[in-house]
Amino acid sequence: MPTVKPRTLSGFMELLPAPQRQMERILDSLRRTYALYGFTPLDTPLMEAAEVLLAKGGGETEKQIYRFQKGDADLALRFDLTVPLAKYVALHSHELSFPFRRYQIGKVYRGERAQRGRFREFYQADIDIIGDGTLSVVNEAEIPAIIYRTFSALGLQRFHIRVNNRKILNGFYALLGLTEKSGDIMRTVDKLDKIGAEKVRAILTDDFAVEPEKVDKILTFLSLSDGDADSAAVLDALEACRGQNPLFDTGLDELRTVVRYLDSFGVPAGHFKVDLTIARGLDYYTGTVYETTLDEFPEIGSVCSGGRYDNLAEYYTDRKLPGVGISIGLTRLFFILQEKGLLNDELPTAPADVLILPMTEDLSPAIALATMFRENGVRAQLYCEGGKFKKKVGYADKLRIPYAVFMGEDEIRDGVVTCKDMSTGGQTTLPAADTLERIKAGLVQRESGRIILG
Amino acid sequence: MPTVKPRTLSGFMELLPAPQRQMERILDSLRRTYALYGFTPLDTPLMEAAEVLLAKGGGETEKQIYRFQKGDADLALRFDLTVPLAKYVALHSHELSFPFRRYQIGKVYRGERAQRGRFREFYQADIDIIGDGTLSVVNEAEIPAIIYRTFSALGLQRFHIRVNNRKILNGFYALLGLTEKSGDIMRTVDKLDKIGAEKVRAILTDDFAVEPEKVDKILTFLSLSDGDADSAAVLDALEACRGQNPLFDTGLDELRTVVRYLDSFGVPAGHFKVDLTIARGLDYYTGTVYETTLDEFPEIGSVCSGGRYDNLAEYYTDRKLPGVGISIGLTRLFFILQEKGLLNDELPTAPADVLILPMTEDLSPAIALATMFRENGVRAQLYCEGGKFKKKVGYADKLRIPYAVFMGEDEIRDGVVTCKDMSTGGQTTLPAADTLERIKAGLVQRESGRIILG
Repeated sequence: MPTVKPRTLSGFMELLPAPQRQMERILDSLRRTYALYGFTPLDTPLMEAAEVLLAKGGGETEKQIYRFQKGDADLALRFDLTVPLAKYVALHSHELSFPFRRYQIGKVYRGERAQRGRFREFYQADIDIIGDGTLSVVNEAEIPAIIYRTFSALGLQRFHIRVNNRKILNGFYALLGLTEKSGDIMRTVDKLDKIGAEKVRAILTDDFAVEPEKVDKILTFLSLSDGDADSAAVLDALEACRGQNPLFDTGLDELRTVVRYLDSFGVPAGHFKVDLTIARGLDYYTGTVYETTLDEFPEIGSVCSGGRYDNLAEYYTDRKLPGVGISIGLTRLFFILQEKGLLNDELPTAPADVLILPMTEDLSPAIALATMFRENGVRAQLYCEGGKFKKKVGYADKLRIPYAVFMGEDEIRDGVVTCKDMSTGGQTTLPAADTLERIKAGLVQRESGRIILG
Repeated sequence: MPTVKPRTLSGFMELLPAPQRQMERILDSLRRTYALYGFTPLDTPLMEAAEVLLAKGGGETEKQIYRFQKGDADLALRFDLTVPLAKYVALHSHELSFPFRRYQIGKVYRGERAQRGRFREFYQADIDIIGDGTLSVVNEAEIPAIIYRTFSALGLQRFHIRVNNRKILNGFYALLGLTEKSGDIMRTVDKLDKIGAEKVRAILTDDFAVEPEKVDKILTFLSLSDGDADSAAVLDALEACRGQNPLFDTGLDELRTVVRYLDSFGVPAGHFKVDLTIARGLDYYTGTVYETTLDEFPEIGSVCSGGRYDNLAEYYTDRKLPGVGISIGLTRLFFILQEKGLLNDELPTAPADVLILPMTEDLSPAIALATMFRENGVRAQLYCEGGKFKKKVGYADKLRIPYAVFMGEDEIRDGVVTCKDMSTGGQTTLPAADTLERIKAGLVQRESGRIILG
């Protein structure tokens, strides 16, 4: 007698097998790409002591966190992968070599208000490069290459990596005598895309008491990177401000380094843009900042963001640990890709490549065939349940298993197998080894498409 | 100013980069093997409504569970992967095709007393095959093949898959008129290995009031599979009891089917053993049961266990869902393998295959080389930090990066790169394409060893 109605918590993504296969394919691709750049995989606990996780404390985070007692322990679930990284690096710093490059793909928890497309449990896919005391700007220049390959490997074609430098912004606002207000200004300017220049102007003058002529200067400055302005042109325009503020000049040099090496890093100019409006909300970014947008879906906002920071683990250690990192909010991205129909449904999602249907009492030949397929890397499932022939073939059909293989008395006597290509309906009756080769060739072809369209 | 001492909760495994790479290699191998048998990957939430997770309720589980409130919600972290599977199948049964084969590798949580080698957060790696109403015994016969390939693929050589059938045990105890006591008897007999026949005898007679002559019969029966007795001999000996209890006869037929197809499934007889002492503690197993032991480390107990059950999701649905599954307690296994020195340290654990050391002001040629390596699947890290040459090479050494590549003025002028094999110290100065080929060949060799020794 059932006593409890089965359900999944709202805000928790639970995928059916076919979309789960699509998600796994994305996860595999990310792992492979991140590894190519010398990042080592880490896996830290989902749970930490609350005092450790909340060392920084305050703000929205604290309200959203899953925090609870178990015995005497005050525990919490991680809400991002950055705090656990800071703890890891501070705790193990004497056993690590710097620069320390790690990627981590894992679930994080935020008890947000439930809302369509908002998740309480979601994957983040992060990479970070942590230096000991110093970290070369070349690491910042490398990040666009990682973003480019990450999305290209997934098959995405129409996207832009947008880059700015916080030193340029902070230097420029200092030039205007607006250092105190630079945080407010950046948070306002960040909304330019959404609310437009006039509203930004109103907020800056009315709410933050920035003088109108300074607002003009800010908007003119930001418009340097408007529209199709290419990176070289933006850099040249920025040179006009050089020599007035050392922070600005350093930021400009850093941005020049990023742009200079794009080509060697294999990033096509058409996928890159200097965008002076990007600031990233978080206060702890201090140098290059990154956003990534899909050309056809600007309303989604950035799908991969991050930046350079000066001090990863100040709450845990005196050691100065500068770094640069980016993060992909994978669960939300997957949800959006599903919604927009951008996941390539042509790629195989079946649990098996071949369904083997034994037609004889003695199952040994069918089982031996399954074993042979598996030894050769072909995913094989034996179907030995009762029922009519039609039901059995229907099973392969429903699961979209690409090949069905029949082993009857005739086949066994003649040393052949009958193989049906489920998509074309075509049948071959060939020795097992030849069937294997045909199947393997067919699978390579089926796997060859892009994961993400668009 | 650091304000909080960084620490990781006790009972939570957090690995350094090199052992983490070993763990990842095991995870990859498991995923590949499970997939070969037509299992689809699932990923269910770590958190569920407490009433859903505790539908079965009672026992040790309830005490160990991490359960907490968030707003109005009564939540809990999963303590195994079986209950979430039951929920998943009951919830999505109309969208799934049966038999439904899934694997899931994920973390589960049990607030056990902290103890060396006991974990509160640990990976389970499960496979299950779920039928709709019925499920062919061939699925039970296939499980030893999966266990065999799982551990063989990991490199393990000296292990045994031990199989029994609960119907045989229940039938036999019914024959002795001990049906009521069969649970107690099985739990006691399960300790035979650890406490010996005499203590088992004492417990059965004293604690459970089993008549001494029945205890003799039980111990004689169980000894049928002692020592080197091969499967055929045990089956033949069991035939002596045929015809007296229908349940026993069914169990014997099922066990015969399992043994019959071992060879077709590719399981060497030397890795398989019928073992009548195996019962598995859980009451819900009803047919074939499995344990896997390492020949040289019997004290570890079973490293992969499971069995056939009749009703996966009775708390959630009226639909009868019989199944068969096995589980590996991966975190504990990894801990033990580490302790016993059974992880092959010869396999690469470095985050990169090549460390590229630019020796010129202009980094373009070194970066282009890194890009070329990455495009060819070689994991390359640029090292652009300051410091002495010795420190840079020391970095490669400490991380055990197999190759270091130097790009100086001479190399750039001559269109070559200098590559040092860090293990032999040998250096080559060759065109980049030739260097790539040498590195790729070297990496294949380095990757060729077993993951688990023993």
